[in-house]
Amino acid sequence: MSKKKPISDSPGRFAYEGLDRVIHEKARLSIVTSLATHPAGLIFNDLKDLCALTDGNLSRHLQILNEAGLIQIWKGFKDNRPQTLCMLTAEGRKRFIEYVTVLENIVTDAVGAEKVAAEEPKLSKGWSPA
Amino acid sequence: MSKKKPISDSPGRFAYEGLDRVIHEKARLSIVTSLATHPAGLIFNDLKDLCALTDGNLSRHLQILNEAGLIQIWKGFKDNRPQTLCMLTAEGRKRFIEYVTVLENIVTDAVGAEKVAAEEPKLSKGWSPA
Repeated sequence: MSKKKPISDSPGRFAYEGLDRVIHEKARLSIVTSLATHPAGLIFNDLKDLCALTDGNLSRHLQILNEAGLIQIWKGFKDNRPQTLCMLTAEGRKRFIEYVTVLENIVTDAVGAEKVAAEEPKLSKGWSPA
Repeated sequence: MSKKKPISDSPGRFAYEGLDRVIHEKARLSIVTSLATHPAGLIFNDLKDLCALTDGNLSRHLQILNEAGLIQIWKGFKDNRPQTLCMLTAEGRKRFIEYVTVLENIVTDAVGAEKVAAEEPKLSKGWSPA
């Protein structure tokens, strides 16, 4: 054990409370990041391709994001065919930025972890496999 | 191949396939990051505090991580009391590093998104709320 007490051991230090579960789910993270990079919105089919989701899966997650107030869904026509347009709301953008701040903290922690791991871990005596 | 296609709109561009679901789940991400920063392992109770998890929740997620080969669980005694020690395996560390690489990509995408959003989005005509 080194003498230096790492700052990293306060209770909840790795709880990442700000990791918004609505955004954190993998498919929704794809959707929200796609929409964040396309502020004028994305047509359903384009969004589906970008996120590699099925129609059903995309619909289901859009509904969750809409109910949470993170996106807006618009109906319209293009070349006489009905279309669905999805856009991030201002609230959605705000929450995405907050979420990404937490991701950045995790990346920072991970970079710190790689440095710490450079000294090979040693299992002290007296432990046996569970 | 010579002409650069805008990277941002290729199919699956935002699918983040490398986002390992075993690690991505919020509680497990806490556990794995804690263990990554503590290569000599963490005692169950310390890990519980760092991740702000209940006994039951921590146990359940440790079992999932153990079955996936990401962590090792050891039993031993400290001050005559039984203790459980959790450590990341080499495989767990490798997969965590891969996972964090994807997180870094998401953060990069999000930073790009903030730049794009600087120009206020405009909804073109012909759309109505769904």
